[in-house]
Amino acid sequence: MPKVSEEHLEARREQILEGARRAFARHGYEGATVGRLEEEIGLSRGAIFNYYPDKWSLFYELASRDQHELTTLLMEQGLDATIRHLTTESPEWMAVYFEVLRILRRDPDRMEEFLARGGEGREEEVKAWIHGLHESGEFRDDVTLEDITAFVNVVANGIALLTSLGLPLEADALVKLVHQGIDPPK
Amino acid sequence: MPKVSEEHLEARREQILEGARRAFARHGYEGATVGRLEEEIGLSRGAIFNYYPDKWSLFYELASRDQHELTTLLMEQGLDATIRHLTTESPEWMAVYFEVLRILRRDPDRMEEFLARGGEGREEEVKAWIHGLHESGEFRDDVTLEDITAFVNVVANGIALLTSLGLPLEADALVKLVHQGIDPPK
Repeated sequence: MPKVSEEHLEARREQILEGARRAFARHGYEGATVGRLEEEIGLSRGAIFNYYPDKWSLFYELASRDQHELTTLLMEQGLDATIRHLTTESPEWMAVYFEVLRILRRDPDRMEEFLARGGEGREEEVKAWIHGLHESGEFRDDVTLEDITAFVNVVANGIALLTSLGLPLEADALVKLVHQGIDPPK
Repeated sequence: MPKVSEEHLEARREQILEGARRAFARHGYEGATVGRLEEEIGLSRGAIFNYYPDKWSLFYELASRDQHELTTLLMEQGLDATIRHLTTESPEWMAVYFEVLRILRRDPDRMEEFLARGGEGREEEVKAWIHGLHESGEFRDDVTLEDITAFVNVVANGIALLTSLGLPLEADALVKLVHQGIDPPK
């Protein structure tokens, strides 16, 4: 296949994902009908579903990309930058996540698959990274690494939730208190 | 009005609220149709809506009671007991909250009213209680009381969210790390 064509496919794919993100953010997951997806994307349903078989695949791909980005941010710039990033997310887009999670509660297999998104072996990568931090004394050693991970997970989900409700959060203070929770005593 | 009648009214009210809670937990807020409310409550719509004008009033009353209970728990038994309580909440019932919050995002006035539920002057009461704890050195004094409150709010919402997804949380570890976040340095 000539290179131009591959570039074209890639551009089309981006156009579809960007439009789908806008449609979900504007109308919610259930509210993003095929007609609304066509409208925001600017392509016919035939063209869209040629790239992604259904609405769920579109959302899953967007969520996987977010997860990939967040994981990269976490490992390259650390927890503080990640917490700050979460407080600045679009409420509309965050709300779509919580809508989807609510739907998936009735579908445990899909829920598990969704929670493991952005996998591609990165779970092991992240675990190794956290383990390295722990080894080098970045965290207090009077609690387990699992406990620290669970705590950070609770905080991240709390931030995402309040952000999705449009409630503003003061990132500086959160960063400081989370550190006081997990840093080794001075 | 004779006393017996008041007791009867009160018993009816409890029957309605208990049934409504089951209906919401089982079918979700939107899924709890009038027919399903009738079924779980065991009364006709006429009887139900004689006590509570609409579905929203039923949910609002249940949420206000929860809020009242949680506030009492917090002030009488403290933060640890409250965190533990949140991790043991029914996922189905917690999920109804997040469904309702999602609906209310499009209705800021009602959202504000909902977030202030359980008010009855208790907001001031809670503020005074927290202030008293702060004064007596229960919290670290290198962050503001607002920051501590926001942090605890983030943690509580994160716990409620993960609980609503049926993801089990280790309360002991969370309690410990939250304390490390907010307690004065030893």
